[in-house]
Amino acid sequence: MNILIVNGVNLNLTGRREQSVYGARTLDEINNSLKTYAAARGHEVAFFTSNLEGELCTAIQEAEGKYDGIVLNAGAYSHYSYAIRDAIAAVTVPVVEVHMSNVHAREDFRKTSVLTAVCKGEILGFGEDSYRLALESFFA
Amino acid sequence: MNILIVNGVNLNLTGRREQSVYGARTLDEINNSLKTYAAARGHEVAFFTSNLEGELCTAIQEAEGKYDGIVLNAGAYSHYSYAIRDAIAAVTVPVVEVHMSNVHAREDFRKTSVLTAVCKGEILGFGEDSYRLALESFFA
Amino acid sequence: MNILIVNGVNLNLTGRREQSVYGARTLDEINNSLKTYAAARGHEVAFFTSNLEGELCTAIQEAEGKYDGIVLNAGAYSHYSYAIRDAIAAVTVPVVEVHMSNVHAREDFRKTSVLTAVCKGEILGFGEDSYRLALESFFA
Amino acid sequence: MNILIVNGVNLNLTGRREQSVYGARTLDEINNSLKTYAAARGHEVAFFTSNLEGELCTAIQEAEGKYDGIVLNAGAYSHYSYAIRDAIAAVTVPVVEVHMSNVHAREDFRKTSVLTAVCKGEILGFGEDSYRLALESFFA
Amino acid sequence: MNILIVNGVNLNLTGRREQSVYGARTLDEINNSLKTYAAARGHEVAFFTSNLEGELCTAIQEAEGKYDGIVLNAGAYSHYSYAIRDAIAAVTVPVVEVHMSNVHAREDFRKTSVLTAVCKGEILGFGEDSYRLALESFFA
Amino acid sequence: MNILIVNGVNLNLTGRREQSVYGARTLDEINNSLKTYAAARGHEVAFFTSNLEGELCTAIQEAEGKYDGIVLNAGAYSHYSYAIRDAIAAVTVPVVEVHMSNVHAREDFRKTSVLTAVCKGEILGFGEDSYRLALESFFA
Amino acid sequence: MNILIVNGVNLNLTGRREQSVYGARTLDEINNSLKTYAAARGHEVAFFTSNLEGELCTAIQEAEGKYDGIVLNAGAYSHYSYAIRDAIAAVTVPVVEVHMSNVHAREDFRKTSVLTAVCKGEILGFGEDSYRLALESFFA
Amino acid sequence: MNILIVNGVNLNLTGRREQSVYGARTLDEINNSLKTYAAARGHEVAFFTSNLEGELCTAIQEAEGKYDGIVLNAGAYSHYSYAIRDAIAAVTVPVVEVHMSNVHAREDFRKTSVLTAVCKGEILGFGEDSYRLALESFFA
Amino acid sequence: MNILIVNGVNLNLTGRREQSVYGARTLDEINNSLKTYAAARGHEVAFFTSNLEGELCTAIQEAEGKYDGIVLNAGAYSHYSYAIRDAIAAVTVPVVEVHMSNVHAREDFRKTSVLTAVCKGEILGFGEDSYRLALESFFA
Amino acid sequence: MNILIVNGVNLNLTGRREQSVYGARTLDEINNSLKTYAAARGHEVAFFTSNLEGELCTAIQEAEGKYDGIVLNAGAYSHYSYAIRDAIAAVTVPVVEVHMSNVHAREDFRKTSVLTAVCKGEILGFGEDSYRLALESFFA
Amino acid sequence: MNILIVNGVNLNLTGRREQSVYGARTLDEINNSLKTYAAARGHEVAFFTSNLEGELCTAIQEAEGKYDGIVLNAGAYSHYSYAIRDAIAAVTVPVVEVHMSNVHAREDFRKTSVLTAVCKGEILGFGEDSYRLALESFFA
Amino acid sequence: MNILIVNGVNLNLTGRREQSVYGARTLDEINNSLKTYAAARGHEVAFFTSNLEGELCTAIQEAEGKYDGIVLNAGAYSHYSYAIRDAIAAVTVPVVEVHMSNVHAREDFRKTSVLTAVCKGEILGFGEDSYRLALESFFA
Repeated sequence: MNILIVNGVNLNLTGRREQSVYGARTLDEINNSLKTYAAARGHEVAFFTSNLEGELCTAIQEAEGKYDGIVLNAGAYSHYSYAIRDAIAAVTVPVVEVHMSNVHAREDFRKTSVLTAVCKGEILGFGEDSYRLALESFFA
Repeated sequence: MNILIVNGVNLNLTGRREQSVYGARTLDEINNSLKTYAAARGHEVAFFTSNLEGELCTAIQEAEGKYDGIVLNAGAYSHYSYAIRDAIAAVTVPVVEVHMSNVHAREDFRKTSVLTAVCKGEILGFGEDSYRLALESFFA
Repeated sequence: MNILIVNGVNLNLTGRREQSVYGARTLDEINNSLKTYAAARGHEVAFFTSNLEGELCTAIQEAEGKYDGIVLNAGAYSHYSYAIRDAIAAVTVPVVEVHMSNVHAREDFRKTSVLTAVCKGEILGFGEDSYRLALESFFA
Repeated sequence: MNILIVNGVNLNLTGRREQSVYGARTLDEINNSLKTYAAARGHEVAFFTSNLEGELCTAIQEAEGKYDGIVLNAGAYSHYSYAIRDAIAAVTVPVVEVHMSNVHAREDFRKTSVLTAVCKGEILGFGEDSYRLALESFFA
Repeated sequence: MNILIVNGVNLNLTGRREQSVYGARTLDEINNSLKTYAAARGHEVAFFTSNLEGELCTAIQEAEGKYDGIVLNAGAYSHYSYAIRDAIAAVTVPVVEVHMSNVHAREDFRKTSVLTAVCKGEILGFGEDSYRLALESFFA
Repeated sequence: MNILIVNGVNLNLTGRREQSVYGARTLDEINNSLKTYAAARGHEVAFFTSNLEGELCTAIQEAEGKYDGIVLNAGAYSHYSYAIRDAIAAVTVPVVEVHMSNVHAREDFRKTSVLTAVCKGEILGFGEDSYRLALESFFA
Repeated sequence: MNILIVNGVNLNLTGRREQSVYGARTLDEINNSLKTYAAARGHEVAFFTSNLEGELCTAIQEAEGKYDGIVLNAGAYSHYSYAIRDAIAAVTVPVVEVHMSNVHAREDFRKTSVLTAVCKGEILGFGEDSYRLALESFFA
Repeated sequence: MNILIVNGVNLNLTGRREQSVYGARTLDEINNSLKTYAAARGHEVAFFTSNLEGELCTAIQEAEGKYDGIVLNAGAYSHYSYAIRDAIAAVTVPVVEVHMSNVHAREDFRKTSVLTAVCKGEILGFGEDSYRLALESFFA
Repeated sequence: MNILIVNGVNLNLTGRREQSVYGARTLDEINNSLKTYAAARGHEVAFFTSNLEGELCTAIQEAEGKYDGIVLNAGAYSHYSYAIRDAIAAVTVPVVEVHMSNVHAREDFRKTSVLTAVCKGEILGFGEDSYRLALESFFA
Repeated sequence: MNILIVNGVNLNLTGRREQSVYGARTLDEINNSLKTYAAARGHEVAFFTSNLEGELCTAIQEAEGKYDGIVLNAGAYSHYSYAIRDAIAAVTVPVVEVHMSNVHAREDFRKTSVLTAVCKGEILGFGEDSYRLALESFFA
Repeated sequence: MNILIVNGVNLNLTGRREQSVYGARTLDEINNSLKTYAAARGHEVAFFTSNLEGELCTAIQEAEGKYDGIVLNAGAYSHYSYAIRDAIAAVTVPVVEVHMSNVHAREDFRKTSVLTAVCKGEILGFGEDSYRLALESFFA
Repeated sequence: MNILIVNGVNLNLTGRREQSVYGARTLDEINNSLKTYAAARGHEVAFFTSNLEGELCTAIQEAEGKYDGIVLNAGAYSHYSYAIRDAIAAVTVPVVEVHMSNVHAREDFRKTSVLTAVCKGEILGFGEDSYRLALESFFA
């Protein structure tokens, strides 16, 4: 399987911002671990990271026909981006939404994701492991 | 008259996504038909398409003084982009909002457009014809 | 094609009330223009105007099998008449909702139409031209 | 006993509109069955049907002193007609509200009836049998 | 001065329904008293009473140019009839809204009048005297 | 036919609590009358009564395949028990919701039933007769 | 009759603030006119004016047994002072609420008065005449 | 590791109810697969299933000190059981919330879980695999 | 006097869970202190503790005629159990609601108790002393 | 101990207003009883009563360092006075909120107290005994 | 320029209450610094401080014609005092609203100021400097 | 000090759009004045302006370690961009939010800023001076 891992706004800062929430490992370190994890199971992963809502839409659009699945952490866009929601709904590739933190235990605005209803599933609260479990959901 | 047709997020996929909602013709095919339609009436149309909210704002800003009207389908941004709303309010060129589908017969979030109040008018539900009727509103 | 133009409550005052909103032409003058416009394209239009919600329901009911389409401006009933909504849903003749003013740029209560979801489409904000564009949507 | 069966807006279309919801029998057929059913038990029924909210109010007002009960299906007016509510509250004749469909399993707006609080009871979801059970509630 | 007193839905029952709320005098008795009261001050009053929302709109429309003022008790329509509201806004004759009962001390739905904002003023809670004070507001 | 009558929380107190609301007859007396009524028509009824939400769910689950219908008065659980709602949705045996009192004429919280949408129909306000009419709806 | 006219917060500025809303006459001028008006009918009026919510409560409390009625314009306190509401409810002297402007045609917060439900009646929108009509309601 | 898998209301019907939502395998079959999966990784799982909210609370309470983690699918109780929420908050054993279906793509009431904020994480939408991924989150 | 002290869901954990909120003494220790306190004043207390909502209802029902009062800490059920509310309303024995913590200074959901309106009074925030003060309210 | 009992708006009328709610004893009589009660236990009480929100704030501010506790019945100010709330939060002396009536069994606006969250505890519904129990909470 | 600095409820405690929020300097110390700061720029400042809402209204009223501007920190009254709002609207002297703390980062009720819409501007979050910047806005 | 001034969507049009709201000076003219103002005080300012939400996030991210403070006018993004909010929260450099207009005196949607809670402070309503006062807040 070939899975695209899409990281949205401010996730490029992972490892540097609010370490008590997001952990001390950088996004590159996390991505490398995920690559290794996937390879060990005979699968491939690719990465796309952007702070721009519209570029995230384009990346999801262009995954159609190229990937078997998308693991998506849209960051704060999860809470209001109907644009990304429509991009997910427009493609047939299944999308799994992930969050590193338990978004339901934080500010009120994080309790709503406008994306989940059009995703295959959602995994949240396991830090870096949220990504790994999402991959696992495709590999099973 | 010289009219700018602005298409927003995910509309580049028209003809490929959810054909039961948006029809089977691609945006290029639609645009070509509109160009022909306008030319037959002695008018010109230009096109701008982007997935990026900020670029849509810029396109509207820059239409000032160059076009006699804008036909705008902002896609999902219609439902929350106060940025695009402010761009429309900042220019004197009249904007007509269009939607191909009947957005009031779909999900709840599509029932609100934050743009309409600062547009000249709104035309929705006629598929590709929504654009043609919007042009017609300028040509009349 | 044979189209019925239905005008609801207070629209009989058009041309006399709030001219800055609704223009200076009377409903009769508008209707005559629409008749001419349709005839020039080889189509027919008929008219029904009433201040009574229930009579508007009956008119819509009775259009079934007699007209190819309805252009409906229900006036203030648009904002709360589930009776008219049910009448529209009960017939197979397609209904296009029109408003002369941009209802989204006025009082809050005008921002909700309980009719749109069961109409084919909606055209608003073009003054008298809203009717003409609605006819055009059928003639195309 | 002498019971008045009042049918409100669009119920005159029963048997013709949305048969999957309202069944294939016309209102006349239903009314005849109810008449037969009542007569077999030694009771009388009368009928009033109108699309006009105000006429429904008048019919309820005039039932005072003439009927032992009213079976009322106000149609879409059930959801917003405080006028009909006040008419019910103004008379001493008991009113039983009926709906053929299970209104709670349909659109949100159908989940609220402004009439029930001033009626004796409510019966919904049994199709044509809703009327018969309402009669039965008076005959018991 | 020539004032039109418009009574809406169910007010024809005044004196017969809920006497603890509306008093024991019939609408005719009240109207006669008001006629006498006005005549004694050198003014005229006329009356229009209907249960039909649309007829109330028409009566208000037709008062234009014929009366110096309208005293309006729209009954339950006060709480949701944007149709009547628009009729009031469409004429230049000043309208004073009256209620016999203190609507704010009753059910929640009576606490909102969609009419007041387009009326000249409102008088409520004085029983039959609400009408007399409204006349007085014109005669002063 | 074999019908199960399920009574939920606090209904075991019927005849002893708030007699002005629920009548003076005990649940046993009511059940015996219903048994007699059904037998006279050639049908059978069985009874299950519990104060425990989970036991009510189990009783509904276990009715599958054993009964032709359920008459359900869930008491206060009607207003919030999505557990019971899911139990109803999980079985194919039709459920008719009943309430002895007119719940819409009492406290606000009683105006919402989370069960009705997944029931066949609802009968409320007829005291003990609500159960009998529900049986009748199955026997017809 | 002996009536107390109570004016609340900022009403001491009448005639000086927002003359388009409140008119050009000062509170003293208005009060003098009201005194004359009452005297001409054989009645007495007294006045109490304060910017302090608690003093307005005390004035209402102390009117008990001394006045036959209170005409109350609480100014902005009308919209949130449950303290004044409780003071009104605590006395048996009838209170008539008045507003000079049509509060329903202004900002949203002015559309709610927490006082009306415990007053005898309300008169609003007639400028200085609102007070005179309130007196008249007592004198009738 | 020793993990307790807690299944709440109506989950005993899995495999028999709404197979398009919950799949065709019974809870016993699922549990056996999970036991095998855990054993293959050197871990143990135990099971507790109940329709009773209070018993679910007790099971969570008693897991303290006996298990290294809880995988909890509370069924419909997830949406309103503050009792279960408090039980989770009262123990130190980490709880992972799971749902087989994508609850955000179903009825509105399923979009809120009152439990998630006090859980470690949440996994939803993967059918039977939701349980397996939850176990995996502990085994990692 | 003979008072029943009813403790609801998760209160069996008192002394073991969240000691900073609920204190370090177990429910048994608290109950023993209350027994001693009552005995010293010549009164008796009995205890009922359960995690099951329905059993709490039954306990309240059965207190009728056996106890002079109930001290009730329903735990999290306080916030949504209309079942317990109805049980309280169904008996004539007075119920005093208590909470050890100041529920208004914690999560939002704890700010609403659906029970208080049908209780005699409420005492909250005094830890173990809340129970003692509730007893005192009966003994006074 | 030295406790300050603060009574807010309209409580000076206790014994005279709405005796069915507040009892027949005057505030002076109640205060004297409380003084005697405290003295009998070796404690002192002082009293402050005012209708003015700001004076209540000042009294609370000035209690700092002079009293060991405050018993506060703010009357209607409880429902909206963030000023009093801030005064309570600004001092370290513990405040116990009391209400004589069961405020949750009355009008909706009385169900919210903006003060409780910053008080030590709340006691309501016991009439005059609410004060005594509040004192007892300090003396224990 | 001559500027009036108005401090509302509980601000007299500044320096003594919640020092982590409001700093350790007393209001007198802050006022003296502001006086010095203004004098150094050739301007004058005066001060008014009160816990009484009505006195704050009066102070604002009386500033008309005497001061060139008002710097207003109304404390908790900011969140609900339409009385103060009306006082500001009634005068022509410009008012700048200030808060020492970042009110948007604290309790929900502090996020709304009913005053800002009628002020010239707002400055918040800079502690004592909020006042200085407000003065600076006048001196510029 | 080295301060970054970030201007968001549509602010590039300043001086050209809605001059009655935003003034007649262009953003360049304003920026030059601010540069001069800062330099005169021995400080430096840099500028970043973009219509793209994601680029504004990146600019804030990259200010970390390079600037001593950010003055941020995010334009319409202020009202819904949780992406920008998270960028602000992710950096340690203090951010001061500014608005030229008094956003609380305009459309409702402008009354909410999702950014303020994570900023140091907010300054609004002073036109171009809002920026200067924000700089001053850093220079002080």
